[in-house]
Amino acid sequence: MHQQHTLDSAMRRALQLAGNGPAAGVNPRVGCVILSPVGEVIAEGWHRGAGTAHAEVDALAQLAPDAARGATAVVTLEPCNHTGRTGPCALALIDAGIGRVVYAVADPGRHSSGGADRLRAAGVDVTGGLLADEVEAFLSDWLVAARLGRPFVTLKWASSLDGRAAAADGSSRWITGPLARQDVHERRAAADAILVGTGTALADDPGLTARDRDGALLPHQPQPVVVGDRAVPAGAAVHRHPLAPWFVPGHDVAAVLATLHERGIRRVFVEGGPTLASAFVRAGLVDEFLVYLAPTLLGGDRLALGDIGVTGIAGQRRLHIDDLVRLGEDILLVARTIPTETTTDQTIPAVTASEK
Amino acid sequence: MHQQHTLDSAMRRALQLAGNGPAAGVNPRVGCVILSPVGEVIAEGWHRGAGTAHAEVDALAQLAPDAARGATAVVTLEPCNHTGRTGPCALALIDAGIGRVVYAVADPGRHSSGGADRLRAAGVDVTGGLLADEVEAFLSDWLVAARLGRPFVTLKWASSLDGRAAAADGSSRWITGPLARQDVHERRAAADAILVGTGTALADDPGLTARDRDGALLPHQPQPVVVGDRAVPAGAAVHRHPLAPWFVPGHDVAAVLATLHERGIRRVFVEGGPTLASAFVRAGLVDEFLVYLAPTLLGGDRLALGDIGVTGIAGQRRLHIDDLVRLGEDILLVARTIPTETTTDQTIPAVTASEK
Ligand SMILES: NC(=O)c1ccc[n+]([C@@H]2O[C@H](COP(=O)([O-])OP(=O)(O)OC[C@H]3O[C@@H](n4cnc5c(N)ncnc54)[C@H](OP(=O)(O)O)[C@@H]3O)[C@@H](O)[C@H]2O)c1
Ligand SMILES: NC(=O)c1ccc[n+]([C@@H]2O[C@H](COP(=O)([O-])OP(=O)(O)OC[C@H]3O[C@@H](n4cnc5c(N)ncnc54)[C@H](OP(=O)(O)O)[C@@H]3O)[C@@H](O)[C@H]2O)c1
Repeated sequence: MHQQHTLDSAMRRALQLAGNGPAAGVNPRVGCVILSPVGEVIAEGWHRGAGTAHAEVDALAQLAPDAARGATAVVTLEPCNHTGRTGPCALALIDAGIGRVVYAVADPGRHSSGGADRLRAAGVDVTGGLLADEVEAFLSDWLVAARLGRPFVTLKWASSLDGRAAAADGSSRWITGPLARQDVHERRAAADAILVGTGTALADDPGLTARDRDGALLPHQPQPVVVGDRAVPAGAAVHRHPLAPWFVPGHDVAAVLATLHERGIRRVFVEGGPTLASAFVRAGLVDEFLVYLAPTLLGGDRLALGDIGVTGIAGQRRLHIDDLVRLGEDILLVARTIPTETTTDQTIPAVTASEK
Repeated sequence: MHQQHTLDSAMRRALQLAGNGPAAGVNPRVGCVILSPVGEVIAEGWHRGAGTAHAEVDALAQLAPDAARGATAVVTLEPCNHTGRTGPCALALIDAGIGRVVYAVADPGRHSSGGADRLRAAGVDVTGGLLADEVEAFLSDWLVAARLGRPFVTLKWASSLDGRAAAADGSSRWITGPLARQDVHERRAAADAILVGTGTALADDPGLTARDRDGALLPHQPQPVVVGDRAVPAGAAVHRHPLAPWFVPGHDVAAVLATLHERGIRRVFVEGGPTLASAFVRAGLVDEFLVYLAPTLLGGDRLALGDIGVTGIAGQRRLHIDDLVRLGEDILLVARTIPTETTTDQTIPAVTASEK
């Protein structure tokens, strides 16, 4: 048996390798380290995105036949038991003669879980839960999506200190400064899709691209999505996005998420405006909040959030602040919803076909 | 002549001594160090509040007659030239035979300035501006009050991240947590007066005292002031404040400040509610903002700030964030108004007698 610190450091290395994979996309970022019986690292692998080898298979491919016999595979996520575009990793590990598997987080996938059981049935020694908290945090958005069967939702808004998204006459350009705006672009690039309501599409004519500080397109672009019934003109900037925009009619945000999930979207970045943002909050469908606060006061009725369905203080939507960042003169608050007693699943309304 | 580092450290010590004085009150907190011709500290003094000796006189009182002859007085504020309850400090220094005076900040008082000139006329070597920035920051509220001829105004509000002061049905208890509420009490204790509108007095029945975490009264209590025309019942909690409350009718907040200034109030703590807070912002009469943000969302129309007179983005009230503090789950933002092109004096409406 390996000493605990050998396994810990192998798992830390596996997590580091996982970080080499793409942040966006359907598949999780997974890393794998293979240790010889004396505890030496003999192979490393990670997953490079949908259609490519899983981390375990990527690591095994580094080794000569039989070199993995009796070795220990340390992997951030439970090996899959699913025949997709690649075969099940559990089987690949069994075939390679791996003697022991140590993983951090169980695979929540409906079709892919069961890998640990399959390995055990084949006589492999399997341990789960090593550094589970660190790996949970690293995979949190993908895990939320996998567990709830809907995309992970980040809601972003920018407001004055008094909660206004624009001045009374609607003017809103340059509430936040360049550092805050650049931060938004970088976070857009980590999402699979970016959503706005028709109100924002028509009022602001945004391009919905993710750009660097020189205005050049970042390597990964989120899929632009416009939600609502009104038509967006053919000449709108969103039509010049490298990905053809999707227009999703209707106002049922749960149905919108279901549609996006079916199309492989796992991370949604909701950029507003206030009507769409409030609908997501009201439906309990926001996992992460990005609130950019500009040090200014605006007054008036252009609120960043409107009716979110709270009537009394008992119904307030409590959040937990994960991070507080100063971006030039502005402040970014990163917050998560505090889970309520009832499971989050129950807050997802059924998808009605008419809304799709 | 003393070396620069001797003078610097004497001024730092004088600033430290100044901090021994009371934060609230009509007079500034001033400290004084007397250096012998060879640079030794031979006396220290500070001002303990209205009616007691000024810092220079307090320091001189430590010395035998003639011991100050040829010595250097290092003092945080320009020595006064004003015969109030105590004689002018400039004269006391001349009479003691002080050879040199080094001060940080000029006295902006209408009746008390001119001390430096008087000292020079008597042949004393006078230098101003040493560590002026540090002393300016330390005395900022008193200096604003002295320069503008009105109290320094701190406006405090507590809101959700979406800018609401209460839920739609008016319930607002416990938006912020115990650390934030205790912070408010400690800051109340540094003010001369605490202001609320009749709306808050009638809705919340606040005691307007400054208390410690066990609920006991802090040593200094701000004067409670209720602004507005409606009567507050005789049984209201504010009547149990150790200081009898002042009721100021009318809605002219500049006139209210003028009245308070005449009564010796130099630091005002405006605690709301939204109507009174908005009136102060609209009139450009807020020097410091304390925004307590609770990590919660409320929606609805109970906004922490209402009509502040801004119509377009060009009219926004830009602030500078001086401090960002986490208080348990809550956040405190301390911000200052960014001075506009026009001098701040011009934003003070004339006091109309009828409003007093
Ligand atoms: N400060 C910020 O962070 C920020 C961000 C974005 C936008 N804005 C500002 O917000 C303003 C636009 O506000 P907005 O509220 O009209 O924008 P919006 O939320 O982008 O669009 C509202 C529209 O979305 C559709 N919609 C989709 N789902 C809905 C639902 N569940 N309930 C109701 N409607 C739904 C409706 O369009 P149909 O009628 O077509 O069905 C609705 O009229 C602009 O001035 C923009 O500058 C500010
Ligand atoms: N979250 C917070 O930080 C906070 C703090 C305090 C209060 N609150 C909440 O705020 C609510 C009360 O709100 P509110 O706006 O009614 O309270 P308010 O601002 O304390 O009182 C408003 C009243 O003040 C008088 N007034 C004084 N100067 C005025 C001016 N320049 N313009 C207009 N009126 C002026 C008027 O009374 P007359 O008609 O009598 O002349 C007016 O009705 C309560 O529910 C309380 O819980 C929240």
